[in-house]
Amino acid sequence: MTLTVGVIGIGKIGQEHIRRLTETLAGARVVAVSDADSARAKEVAARLPGASVYGTGEDLVAAKDVDAVIVASWGATHAAYVLAAIKAGKPVFCEKPMATTEADCSAIVDAEAAFGRRLVQVGFMRRFDAQYRAMKEAIEKGAVGLPLMFHSVHRNASAPAHFKATMAITDTAVHDIDIARFLLDDEPVAIAVRAPRANRRAGGVADPLLALMDMRSGALATIETSVNIAYGYDIRGEVIGETGTVSLAEQSDVVIKANGAFSVRVFGDWPERFGPAFDAEFRAWISAAAKGGAAGSSAWDGYVATAATLAGVKALESGAREPIKLRERPALYAL
Amino acid sequence: MTLTVGVIGIGKIGQEHIRRLTETLAGARVVAVSDADSARAKEVAARLPGASVYGTGEDLVAAKDVDAVIVASWGATHAAYVLAAIKAGKPVFCEKPMATTEADCSAIVDAEAAFGRRLVQVGFMRRFDAQYRAMKEAIEKGAVGLPLMFHSVHRNASAPAHFKATMAITDTAVHDIDIARFLLDDEPVAIAVRAPRANRRAGGVADPLLALMDMRSGALATIETSVNIAYGYDIRGEVIGETGTVSLAEQSDVVIKANGAFSVRVFGDWPERFGPAFDAEFRAWISAAAKGGAAGSSAWDGYVATAATLAGVKALESGAREPIKLRERPALYAL
Amino acid sequence: MTLTVGVIGIGKIGQEHIRRLTETLAGARVVAVSDADSARAKEVAARLPGASVYGTGEDLVAAKDVDAVIVASWGATHAAYVLAAIKAGKPVFCEKPMATTEADCSAIVDAEAAFGRRLVQVGFMRRFDAQYRAMKEAIEKGAVGLPLMFHSVHRNASAPAHFKATMAITDTAVHDIDIARFLLDDEPVAIAVRAPRANRRAGGVADPLLALMDMRSGALATIETSVNIAYGYDIRGEVIGETGTVSLAEQSDVVIKANGAFSVRVFGDWPERFGPAFDAEFRAWISAAAKGGAAGSSAWDGYVATAATLAGVKALESGAREPIKLRERPALYAL
Amino acid sequence: MTLTVGVIGIGKIGQEHIRRLTETLAGARVVAVSDADSARAKEVAARLPGASVYGTGEDLVAAKDVDAVIVASWGATHAAYVLAAIKAGKPVFCEKPMATTEADCSAIVDAEAAFGRRLVQVGFMRRFDAQYRAMKEAIEKGAVGLPLMFHSVHRNASAPAHFKATMAITDTAVHDIDIARFLLDDEPVAIAVRAPRANRRAGGVADPLLALMDMRSGALATIETSVNIAYGYDIRGEVIGETGTVSLAEQSDVVIKANGAFSVRVFGDWPERFGPAFDAEFRAWISAAAKGGAAGSSAWDGYVATAATLAGVKALESGAREPIKLRERPALYAL
Repeated sequence: MTLTVGVIGIGKIGQEHIRRLTETLAGARVVAVSDADSARAKEVAARLPGASVYGTGEDLVAAKDVDAVIVASWGATHAAYVLAAIKAGKPVFCEKPMATTEADCSAIVDAEAAFGRRLVQVGFMRRFDAQYRAMKEAIEKGAVGLPLMFHSVHRNASAPAHFKATMAITDTAVHDIDIARFLLDDEPVAIAVRAPRANRRAGGVADPLLALMDMRSGALATIETSVNIAYGYDIRGEVIGETGTVSLAEQSDVVIKANGAFSVRVFGDWPERFGPAFDAEFRAWISAAAKGGAAGSSAWDGYVATAATLAGVKALESGAREPIKLRERPALYAL
Repeated sequence: MTLTVGVIGIGKIGQEHIRRLTETLAGARVVAVSDADSARAKEVAARLPGASVYGTGEDLVAAKDVDAVIVASWGATHAAYVLAAIKAGKPVFCEKPMATTEADCSAIVDAEAAFGRRLVQVGFMRRFDAQYRAMKEAIEKGAVGLPLMFHSVHRNASAPAHFKATMAITDTAVHDIDIARFLLDDEPVAIAVRAPRANRRAGGVADPLLALMDMRSGALATIETSVNIAYGYDIRGEVIGETGTVSLAEQSDVVIKANGAFSVRVFGDWPERFGPAFDAEFRAWISAAAKGGAAGSSAWDGYVATAATLAGVKALESGAREPIKLRERPALYAL
Repeated sequence: MTLTVGVIGIGKIGQEHIRRLTETLAGARVVAVSDADSARAKEVAARLPGASVYGTGEDLVAAKDVDAVIVASWGATHAAYVLAAIKAGKPVFCEKPMATTEADCSAIVDAEAAFGRRLVQVGFMRRFDAQYRAMKEAIEKGAVGLPLMFHSVHRNASAPAHFKATMAITDTAVHDIDIARFLLDDEPVAIAVRAPRANRRAGGVADPLLALMDMRSGALATIETSVNIAYGYDIRGEVIGETGTVSLAEQSDVVIKANGAFSVRVFGDWPERFGPAFDAEFRAWISAAAKGGAAGSSAWDGYVATAATLAGVKALESGAREPIKLRERPALYAL
Repeated sequence: MTLTVGVIGIGKIGQEHIRRLTETLAGARVVAVSDADSARAKEVAARLPGASVYGTGEDLVAAKDVDAVIVASWGATHAAYVLAAIKAGKPVFCEKPMATTEADCSAIVDAEAAFGRRLVQVGFMRRFDAQYRAMKEAIEKGAVGLPLMFHSVHRNASAPAHFKATMAITDTAVHDIDIARFLLDDEPVAIAVRAPRANRRAGGVADPLLALMDMRSGALATIETSVNIAYGYDIRGEVIGETGTVSLAEQSDVVIKANGAFSVRVFGDWPERFGPAFDAEFRAWISAAAKGGAAGSSAWDGYVATAATLAGVKALESGAREPIKLRERPALYAL
């Protein structure tokens, strides 16, 4: 009944996933960990009753008592572990990006298609957010007519020291790109990126950026990333249809009227904003993995996200609209 | 074509009315003023081309070139001027309260009923406020079903030095009492007043108060007055019907996201909040008075407001629910 | 590590608690059930691996493998089971009301005080709601000054067929009464109840009601219950302080602009509105019970809630303001 | 004391201005009209006591009793009348566009600069809207830091039958272009226009459009025009600064909770949304013109608006980013 899980990569995000499976959600137990830093692996395992440490991710994947795998290691290492899990026929939850090159992504897609059943779930938690789901539901019900545009806004109070402008595409806008596809039920064909006047708080990095992503249907997604905007973590989105629009409502707990104004607190950062979405994402994964499958974003979604962000990086550098050329979609991923 | 107006009482509010008729709105001209302070009367008249000063309000009412009269003098003096205007058959706009005793109010009602046509308009500007009008329209359209309750909230940042607890009823809640009757299309039958823990900013005055006004239909109006609440001027209202509710939306110009919150400015005081309502109120009066009549709150409304507030004062003192016994309503004021 | 739980009373709410412990939250396992309907008990137990059925609640409490107990049976039976749990020194989560008489509540308080440590947690989930917690935090930080009033609104789309007016106090307003105490950090001293014009949808039941609860400090809590208001489940609250107010923000997922309006969905019923609060409540209970204790509302809170609602029932019948006379508070429940 | 005004062009908008000056606002009188349709001119004049009809706009401008002129004729005719007014040294309020070619606009700028004092006011009413003014004030106070982007949204329920895609730039986005300059205190240097998937309600016209206007500082303004969006007239705007954002709040009168949702009416069209702004615009004009001058948008603003919209039309056709090359700004228009 209880899903036994092995976790590859137990840095900040990996430990957060372990905490969620162990302390918050029913149905799973972490029985194996592995990490490039073996001391850290031992330390974390020691706090998990009955958990083993494996020297390599591949060994962990192969372990008999591991039903399913979470990959939360450094991005460039994802592909190998995901491929190993597919080979072992084990469900695998992979943090974004699924892989850092189109070739690696494509290899995963091929492997899973050959396996013949979904095993891979990519960590785009927004698809489990109650607000985005309500948005999609409204669109599907025809509440706003055929979608023509999507304005997405992704703001962070401040970027870490090592942040580069391209990361605003690969690490930040990647979430907006995935959710645009989800909401519009459409694939991207091209992307351009504008770098307006830079925020001096960004220390020389081009920030904010405005990406313009063209979809196959002709719909246009605009994505503003502002990663040093000081005031808080703020995710906004509006889909413009032929007869109306649907947008994410402001999330607020209390309204305080004081000192000549009424005010509402803004989220500080993503763990708070998307906490319930992460819970729902892993609840869905535990449930699907227990049946040998996966939920949410697929390997195909992981592939397209990487293809689109790499085109976006190119577009930021070239200043031109860059095409996003997608391979053929295997039948496994038919809509 | 231009309505010639005489203004009795040119203190702060009287001068504000003069300014509105002279500088803001089309259709009227102030040709006469009178005030207990004759020096002030001369000074104000000097700024109004062709305006005369009259020694008494009665003389002003009688003046041939005065088409219509505004009474903005001290409350206790209103009745005499309004009666004089009715006698002269001239339209009269009277600031609230129409009169300070039920007997005086009743005499005005009798005089106007005998005259046979409405001449009196009482200064309850909320009836011209776009929000309250939309509220009434929603109720009349049946958007919320039969009304069962009305919660009204009336907050001021601070009360003047001479403020007494009874003024929270006669000067503050009187607006809520009138608008409750307007929205619910109903008459009050009793009133009780609660004095919760007092705001220490009120300097010993019982503030806030909560009045509970029973209507003939059984509907209940609750009226919170908080006249020292510091944060601003805030008017809230919600009508609870059998199937839904309608409430005043928050009024806001811009939303500022900064410093971990989003915030919206609250109004500072009533001239700002109700500026457009005052414009609409006087526009309606100029137009009606030009045809020899009146708009908005009637002498009957002025009478009921005084009767209800006097019962409220008694209720504050007795701690009991006090009846509001209304005289018969002349046919002139049939709904 | 895993808390083993026995559940007494497995009607709708009991089964909902079982589902929450079994499928949603980490850390607990349901190992025992008992119910007046033994067939139902067997059926439910059959779906819980390794769970036993007990003929009586007392037997379940006594079972060796039961670490902690949930009481979700019919209200009048609560006291006996809670007392049994205290006697056994086992943590017990009791649905509201803790007991239906003041005497029973008082006996529980005495028993727990004699035991010397909190074992009882009463199911007032609002204390775990993120919005109410933010409200309390704002008050404690002094964001609005000393609290003077609290307006609470509790609306249901429709009441069940067997609903009586007194249930609007004992089953509905009881939540507002508990949260008023929590927010104001104050005890009630009297309560009055008004029954305005009745909603015809209520089929003869007095609905809505307006309760006025006086607190020891002089603060006044007003509680509107409207249990047949058709449009949805809606919980509103505002604390009025000396310098400002804090209120529950509207909860909304998406804003749809269509057909001349923008609109936001209202909750359908309480399981949706308070789902995350129930999760947090049981998470806190599992964690506290695992250490042999309790969190959230205490037996004292359960006692005061019953005392206040019984006074409210009396007030509804008498039409008068009824005193709420509380016994002395044992040191165990010192604030 | 009263400003005597002549109105050239008395179609729908001209008559609306006449109505505003005659029935709504204090301080002006319409004494002269002229129109290509002389029958209409006579008919309108007949309703204005003492007003004369002139055969040509030039004759009207020259009339002795005309203090100031309003130009509300067909766009291509504006320049001649405005130049005539400048030649006569008379204040002139000109509907947008000030002129339809850059050459004509430039000629007006030269003429006024030679005259040495502002006489021309261009009808961009948004600069008098309370919301945009609050937005500018917030920016100037530094509430959001240095502005980096401006997202403007301009939506109409439906476009008239003769609507062409270029009109979404020249007639619709022109308002957003002017207000972008006002808010950002900056000049445009280039513009690109995207035409996403077209709304089928637009009958073959490219709608919506997304214009991207680069400002001299590097700030980027995005302008969405959706002119067939059915749900209503909706104007949104947000300025993104280095540390926060400021946006237009939703305007709403009442919130109705019914049928499972709470909803707020959206404006039907611009006369309702911007009614108070038109009042304020003409109040400012009457006051300034009475002193021989002008307020609000200047001839320079009219020139830049035309230059930017013509570049926008070119960009729509070319698909490329088109430069906006501005002439030197005469000292008269120094910021």
